[in-house]
Amino acid sequence: MSDAAVVPEPTRPARGVHVVEVGPRDGLQNERLVLDVDTRVELVRRLVEAGVRRLETVSFVNPARVPQMAGAEEVMAAVPRTAPDGSHVDHIGLVLNERGLDRALTAGVDEVNLVAITTETFSHRNQGAGVEDVLGATVRMLQRSRAAGVPASVTVSAAFGCPFEGEVSTEQVMRVVRAVLPGEPVEMAIADTIGVGVPADVRRLVRAVRAESDVPLRAHFHNTRNTGYANALTAVEEGVLALDASIGGYGGCPFAPDATGNIGTEDLVYALGRSGVDVGLRVADLADPCDFVTAALGAEQATAQLGRAGDWPG
Amino acid sequence: MSDAAVVPEPTRPARGVHVVEVGPRDGLQNERLVLDVDTRVELVRRLVEAGVRRLETVSFVNPARVPQMAGAEEVMAAVPRTAPDGSHVDHIGLVLNERGLDRALTAGVDEVNLVAITTETFSHRNQGAGVEDVLGATVRMLQRSRAAGVPASVTVSAAFGCPFEGEVSTEQVMRVVRAVLPGEPVEMAIADTIGVGVPADVRRLVRAVRAESDVPLRAHFHNTRNTGYANALTAVEEGVLALDASIGGYGGCPFAPDATGNIGTEDLVYALGRSGVDVGLRVADLADPCDFVTAALGAEQATAQLGRAGDWPG
Repeated sequence: MSDAAVVPEPTRPARGVHVVEVGPRDGLQNERLVLDVDTRVELVRRLVEAGVRRLETVSFVNPARVPQMAGAEEVMAAVPRTAPDGSHVDHIGLVLNERGLDRALTAGVDEVNLVAITTETFSHRNQGAGVEDVLGATVRMLQRSRAAGVPASVTVSAAFGCPFEGEVSTEQVMRVVRAVLPGEPVEMAIADTIGVGVPADVRRLVRAVRAESDVPLRAHFHNTRNTGYANALTAVEEGVLALDASIGGYGGCPFAPDATGNIGTEDLVYALGRSGVDVGLRVADLADPCDFVTAALGAEQATAQLGRAGDWPG
Repeated sequence: MSDAAVVPEPTRPARGVHVVEVGPRDGLQNERLVLDVDTRVELVRRLVEAGVRRLETVSFVNPARVPQMAGAEEVMAAVPRTAPDGSHVDHIGLVLNERGLDRALTAGVDEVNLVAITTETFSHRNQGAGVEDVLGATVRMLQRSRAAGVPASVTVSAAFGCPFEGEVSTEQVMRVVRAVLPGEPVEMAIADTIGVGVPADVRRLVRAVRAESDVPLRAHFHNTRNTGYANALTAVEEGVLALDASIGGYGGCPFAPDATGNIGTEDLVYALGRSGVDVGLRVADLADPCDFVTAALGAEQATAQLGRAGDWPG
């Protein structure tokens, strides 16, 4: 047996509570400054170096509509698939339609994340189709993705409120959940796209999903009204395993007005760590990718606060 | 009976969960720009107009050490003691020593708030005396205040961590609580002076105090590391009745490095309101005092986010 044969397969660790880094996708897609492929690849490389092992790396959307996400194939071709410690890095591609799924599968993503929306108005603005049409397409895409051997999750967007229609009921969320579960997503996410939810909403929605399914849950929070971190901590208490967060707290949605700031990865890691939840990341290691993206975007400072306030007790 | 005789006594409503507005004190005391007495009185007037009924209005500290708080007597002489709706406005004076208590009682505050600190280093820096000495003085001041007919509370500062000594144990907090309870404070507060705590800490400390006393509890959080709102919501769940907050999220401690931003009143009111807790304040009404203090301080924008993001669903 030659030496070449002992190169190990990348290991995929069993996942407990963990962070899904969405900075390269949600973090950048609403910024005025469009980062080129090389810069986005370098951001991913630095995030992996900092310990991140699961990322929403790209979005296979129409670059005419979201120029910040252009070149997804080039990004996927260049990002590290294995971390310096030999562990596998999971790259998720966001997909809004069949064309995007074609591109994602060809580009070799590790996971696909699909989006279904609770309200008609937002569904039309984000995906160019009504709720029922998107739900049907989502189930078909789940089946195609599974057939291609690529795990697929579904994010229920505007699960806590809609930028256009206001209040969203538990029933509206469960309609989406019930419609997509037969497609057997590997994970379901509830997303507070516009940052209006509070912990009581998190409990209500997680328990509603749990009453009907044991599908692994992810949650996606924006800190638009300073409730994002409270929501994230509550989600973990309720058994949610994966939390989307964006390095530096950058982020927003181009089709949801005022959907500012994802919760920041470093601040979330701090809050979880002090709560006794180890997600395998250290605040100090996250300063480098945060500084990198802040400089690349020409931003004055990140909205996440750990970079300024410092880790504690240090 | 003449018409003059029917002017009603100011009413003091029975207090459920409520906000103690600390903007005029904690919000301003760390700002580079010193606001004059008239401006601080006008801020208080606008806060009362917006519905605030309990405020930490002034601090009776040495103006040579904290020039932002100079003229406390003049402020107290000019602020409204009754709201437009006829209800009483509670003005709290912060007091760090006997000299300050003399001034507070003479100035006619409605309540005195005393401060005891968990660690030797911070106690010396903030109050110029060690923990034991401060605890002894606190009990004496509680007795003097009661004898003068003025309710007095005690804030346990650095209850979640010390800017100089790091971790603070439950036992260090309980040592302070046990020492001051015999002085019969009307309320005890736990303060996360430097914004390092998480909800698990809130539960731990509230339950520790509760195990030994049924004194009404207040909590004081800074959002330095984005955990302040999560802490506040958890405190209410744990039975804390009063939450300190600062309009616009301004604030800090001149003797605690990097003790940025109190939790913001408007953001707290939003989070509590969406959680089903009515504190008698409306986000829309708080925009005016926030805009006023932001302009007065020459700040670019408040750290609280409701002013930018807007109330929801509006």
